[in-house]
Amino acid sequence: MRTIDWIAAGDGQPGHIRMIDQTALPAETTLLDIHTVGDLIAAIRRLSVRGAPALGVAGAMGVVLAAQQYDGDAVARAAARLRMARPTAVNLSVGVDRALTGWRSDGTRGALQAALALRDEDIEACTRMAARGAELVRSLVPDADRRITALTICNTGALAAVEHGTALGVIEKLHVDGALELALACETRPLLQGARLTTWELAAMGAPHELIIDSAATGILAAGDVDVVLVGADRIAANGDTANKIGTFTLAVAAGYAGVPFVVVAPESTVDPSTPSGADIEIEDRGPGEVIGYAGTATAPAGTAARNPAFDVTPAALITAIVTERRTVRPARGEAPCVPSESA
Amino acid sequence: MRTIDWIAAGDGQPGHIRMIDQTALPAETTLLDIHTVGDLIAAIRRLSVRGAPALGVAGAMGVVLAAQQYDGDAVARAAARLRMARPTAVNLSVGVDRALTGWRSDGTRGALQAALALRDEDIEACTRMAARGAELVRSLVPDADRRITALTICNTGALAAVEHGTALGVIEKLHVDGALELALACETRPLLQGARLTTWELAAMGAPHELIIDSAATGILAAGDVDVVLVGADRIAANGDTANKIGTFTLAVAAGYAGVPFVVVAPESTVDPSTPSGADIEIEDRGPGEVIGYAGTATAPAGTAARNPAFDVTPAALITAIVTERRTVRPARGEAPCVPSESA
Repeated sequence: MRTIDWIAAGDGQPGHIRMIDQTALPAETTLLDIHTVGDLIAAIRRLSVRGAPALGVAGAMGVVLAAQQYDGDAVARAAARLRMARPTAVNLSVGVDRALTGWRSDGTRGALQAALALRDEDIEACTRMAARGAELVRSLVPDADRRITALTICNTGALAAVEHGTALGVIEKLHVDGALELALACETRPLLQGARLTTWELAAMGAPHELIIDSAATGILAAGDVDVVLVGADRIAANGDTANKIGTFTLAVAAGYAGVPFVVVAPESTVDPSTPSGADIEIEDRGPGEVIGYAGTATAPAGTAARNPAFDVTPAALITAIVTERRTVRPARGEAPCVPSESA
Repeated sequence: MRTIDWIAAGDGQPGHIRMIDQTALPAETTLLDIHTVGDLIAAIRRLSVRGAPALGVAGAMGVVLAAQQYDGDAVARAAARLRMARPTAVNLSVGVDRALTGWRSDGTRGALQAALALRDEDIEACTRMAARGAELVRSLVPDADRRITALTICNTGALAAVEHGTALGVIEKLHVDGALELALACETRPLLQGARLTTWELAAMGAPHELIIDSAATGILAAGDVDVVLVGADRIAANGDTANKIGTFTLAVAAGYAGVPFVVVAPESTVDPSTPSGADIEIEDRGPGEVIGYAGTATAPAGTAARNPAFDVTPAALITAIVTERRTVRPARGEAPCVPSESA
């Protein structure tokens, strides 16, 4: 089952998006059929679909919905609304732009062709990242026979992509290769993607795993129990600064303190040459609701003010390596994903 | 209203403990009347009473209950059970031992006298810590006119003590003095004492405050928004290593990275000369239940394995200062709370 896919209706009828509703996991596996841009924006905002690669495919398929719904400039306006559903996630914009280019050259058919190509490329890219990442991790551990304990945050598995994951794809590859000792999953407050989604995927793949609260990671890292921290990315600046789920920066600082390699696994499409550094990345605040409650239960007095940044930016200096489907970049050694002339 | 107190029955009848049931906050303010050692142990374990100073008073008053319930060796055995209700919290043991000494010299009356003296000393100690801590914080901020933004974790307020708090007592003092800009409270997974209790106290004292998820602290610290991190302690080793609520070590590493002062506020009774360093502190694991769900709602697939250390140990080198009712120690400058000959 794919996390997100396009359902063609045949005989010239409008097709639609089908996705796993991730807000219902792990309790239920529910499929959502989405026929309009408005419904897709709502699904993206409530995180029914999330994760950089999946958002890219959602954005591209959303332009196909727009092309089916609207004509002329209204398509571009719908695409602009779609792009703003999650402003920090560069893949969403990239996916939208790519399908929009297809639409400009060949209408709905052009948009669909671009969206399906993006879907297939993401599947292929994740397979390559998993292989490259697993090889890197093995090379980072001095004892070649030692099985790897990896710590991760949020969900970067198949549920964040189409068929395979990014950081969790590397863990899956290590497991399939018989090289995984243990996967430690941070629960990932406030929306608990680690608790709800990553453990669900790890259980499905039969990989040994334990769940921890986010703030327990530092002690576990400092105790020497972890070989590598593997995380995804929502946007990688030209200099290597990386925006990802809130809590990632904390893990990077803790990994640096503990001397544990910190590795970002993300597709090339996440690298944004037009963003010179982390200082240029807009961080969305998702409002107090997610912080003053937990899993539907109020946890703080009603009306408590809360700060709720959805992402943080990990400085390049704390990142041992960025692994994409094409290359491995070593920011902590001074390498940058983009040469300075590429950046705006 | 005191967090914990002794209710005398008069005319030679057994007295009992009355405490605010902190598991019911912030939704309800419920008082618990506790007449037996068994009920007290259960209340301590489920965290109806928590926080180092309050646990000390609970332990001492628990010995009075034991002296009322049992005779001879059975009193000492009940005291030993009480001590093990939370093995990491040194104040609990200290309180138990002090009342036991009173009991040995003068029976139930001696135990009660010791317990009430401990209660009164804790009130006095918190008042002194608040004054000393607030003065230190002002001295750590270069601009004397600047109002302070302080970040804290767990609950170290009146609810953790008898009438005033430790770290939150310092924040309260800054607020009363008109020197508090903002208090940032970490929610403190897994049991959310920050969300449930600290925001409740801050609202009650009328202090400006915002709640954050624990893993958002690093980004906020690195952005330069915070003047000081103030935390409590469950046990301070002779060398200054400090056991406190899980997540404290993470804040210390992040504060060190961001160059923000990190200050521990705790009574002298928390300093344990018989524990040479953090490596000698036993960390209780409270089991997976608190991690895989909250307030009866499952957040992870049933049966998910979880690691749940209740405390972590912050190395002395990361601690700018330890403030007690008697003194200010500067571990990051190489000062230790106990001279080496004091340690075991």
